[in-house]
Amino acid sequence: MPPKTADNDLADPPITPATTEPAGMTYAGSGVDIDAGDESARRIVAHMRRTYGPRVLGRDGAFAGCFRLDFNERLFKRNYRDPVLVACTDGVGTKVKLAIQLGVHDTIGQDCVAMNVNDLIVQGAEPLLFLDYIGTHKVNPANIEHIVKGVADGCELAGCALLGGETAEMPDIYDKDEYDLAGFAVGVVELSRVVDGTRVEEGDVILGLESDGVHSNGFSLIRAILREAKLDLKKTYDALETEQTLGQVLLTPTRIYAKQVVSLLRKYKVKKVVSGMSHITGGGLVDNLPRALGPDLNAKINTKAWTVPPIFKFLQQHGRVEDAEMWRVFNMGIGYCVIVRPHFAESAARHLERKGERVHVIGKVTKGNGRVVMS
Amino acid sequence: MPPKTADNDLADPPITPATTEPAGMTYAGSGVDIDAGDESARRIVAHMRRTYGPRVLGRDGAFAGCFRLDFNERLFKRNYRDPVLVACTDGVGTKVKLAIQLGVHDTIGQDCVAMNVNDLIVQGAEPLLFLDYIGTHKVNPANIEHIVKGVADGCELAGCALLGGETAEMPDIYDKDEYDLAGFAVGVVELSRVVDGTRVEEGDVILGLESDGVHSNGFSLIRAILREAKLDLKKTYDALETEQTLGQVLLTPTRIYAKQVVSLLRKYKVKKVVSGMSHITGGGLVDNLPRALGPDLNAKINTKAWTVPPIFKFLQQHGRVEDAEMWRVFNMGIGYCVIVRPHFAESAARHLERKGERVHVIGKVTKGNGRVVMS
Repeated sequence: MPPKTADNDLADPPITPATTEPAGMTYAGSGVDIDAGDESARRIVAHMRRTYGPRVLGRDGAFAGCFRLDFNERLFKRNYRDPVLVACTDGVGTKVKLAIQLGVHDTIGQDCVAMNVNDLIVQGAEPLLFLDYIGTHKVNPANIEHIVKGVADGCELAGCALLGGETAEMPDIYDKDEYDLAGFAVGVVELSRVVDGTRVEEGDVILGLESDGVHSNGFSLIRAILREAKLDLKKTYDALETEQTLGQVLLTPTRIYAKQVVSLLRKYKVKKVVSGMSHITGGGLVDNLPRALGPDLNAKINTKAWTVPPIFKFLQQHGRVEDAEMWRVFNMGIGYCVIVRPHFAESAARHLERKGERVHVIGKVTKGNGRVVMS
Repeated sequence: MPPKTADNDLADPPITPATTEPAGMTYAGSGVDIDAGDESARRIVAHMRRTYGPRVLGRDGAFAGCFRLDFNERLFKRNYRDPVLVACTDGVGTKVKLAIQLGVHDTIGQDCVAMNVNDLIVQGAEPLLFLDYIGTHKVNPANIEHIVKGVADGCELAGCALLGGETAEMPDIYDKDEYDLAGFAVGVVELSRVVDGTRVEEGDVILGLESDGVHSNGFSLIRAILREAKLDLKKTYDALETEQTLGQVLLTPTRIYAKQVVSLLRKYKVKKVVSGMSHITGGGLVDNLPRALGPDLNAKINTKAWTVPPIFKFLQQHGRVEDAEMWRVFNMGIGYCVIVRPHFAESAARHLERKGERVHVIGKVTKGNGRVVMS
């Protein structure tokens, strides 16, 4: 792949003797458009820059991005005694297919950031940096810019730097106009403050933070339902209780909980108020909440504690999807869970609400065998 | 995507009343095979574990991988005063297509690690951790295991931990039996020891470290040449001067220079002997060496200082590719460059040779305008 340098000028390679034979084969002739790659790289730079804080070092054209972990300058002082790096990778699944179908490429990047940073913060980490990987049929500089704009938007929402990325033109892997988008996030947490779920106790309260719709999961099922029920993405439906089209509702970017959750974790400097957390992705509450629990505890969830948003009922009805399947595939309105000591449940919920979250007490931790019990 | 947990048991979701209607739609029915995903995750775990050192924390089923940056235990003591995180992402380009064509999936992972860690070390960083992203048509657990085995092999060679990964089943994006592979690496370097190229001076010596063939670049052109010249991947060719088939020669995994280069950087604790480095990827020496230079310097390269390996001559001949194009697309036998102060050129070269590298003095730094001049 051509390096993402601003300067891709050719130097002085050896000259081939003039020949009357037909011109030889070239890299460009084999389908890779280096100029489009360069234009795409130029368009991306401004979006990356707006995510940079003073901790980002380095220069354009570097082989890798540099991020200063400790930072001693007065205004931005950060120091770690025993820092633990937390890293994860995720894509956006077939939601990307819907973005392609609708020709809307500037929000899928936020989904990509969200899927990663929401996983990071589960361990108690503060997101530091992000990188994106786009594999595509042909580099369309305008589309690539839209995709990266969304990634940069997500990074701003999450408070992390978009430190780099790669756009790979692979016409033999991706069909015309198609692409895949994956992301990588790194965060940091003090060793003594890693949230690893071993702290969760019987009696802890489970706070559910509302999602912004289906987020980035279940799109293979969603797209099957769209086909089977012959639904029109460009139409509005009364059952959705919104003026948005079905396509707009489904493409709503995944909510990013990072700044709010990091703020909550910082609020309780000494006491370990937050005992566990869970990002509700594929598998829903039933598969993801147990990941925050020990094997001898259950999460008892009161499904009437919040209102399942219309989009889920709409999909269930049109796909005649069974309840159990809905709860295993979708977030059903709760995108992130924070498990707290009962004494602090009220103040933690209020703090998250002040930061913009819609919070519900959705259940509590009981003795059990590592499962979710719904009622 | 289903989370990579060992335990994907279903909990007790609400029961749907019995119905005589035809069965509703399901996630599995929409083409996503959760069981294959689980089997794949189980097969991967052992490969990940063998890359773990004592700095990896955490447990299976966690949302993100944890890596302890500072490490105070006697045997593995590592401490950083002002640590800079270095991060990058890259894929393997259309080399993956050749792996698919040959049905050989267990070395492409090393390519993926190499493309990333060789970029990291250019900044002076020591690789710490790696994550892989595989997008695929259908999860074939055996193939996924082979791919991840190669990634783990690469991580062992580079001395970093395979901290996590994602396998995304996307039948509507990837064609039958196809996949894409991208990786992401994080390293660390002391702020005072970042190699950023501003140190390179007139008179510095350029050491070229031999490549292991074409590495992971130029495969769109290579595959075009294979088609045009009707070459047979399963055949041996005299011109290749090896008993390996053409397919084996082309699939040879990208050399990983990490441990050797990190060792060299550690050797000179006080003096800054290494002034710049360059990973020779797409763009060849002509595009990649200038990334290590200031704008007022040239790299003067003596192309007779090493022998261009047979595979490059073979490709050039069969594709009637012009010299200039060859030098811009391929590494031509030099996969990594280390720029050193002239006084230390001999000892640096010897150190790298003791670590297993084949090293050539390929040129020197002169006054100029940020270009490569070949003779």
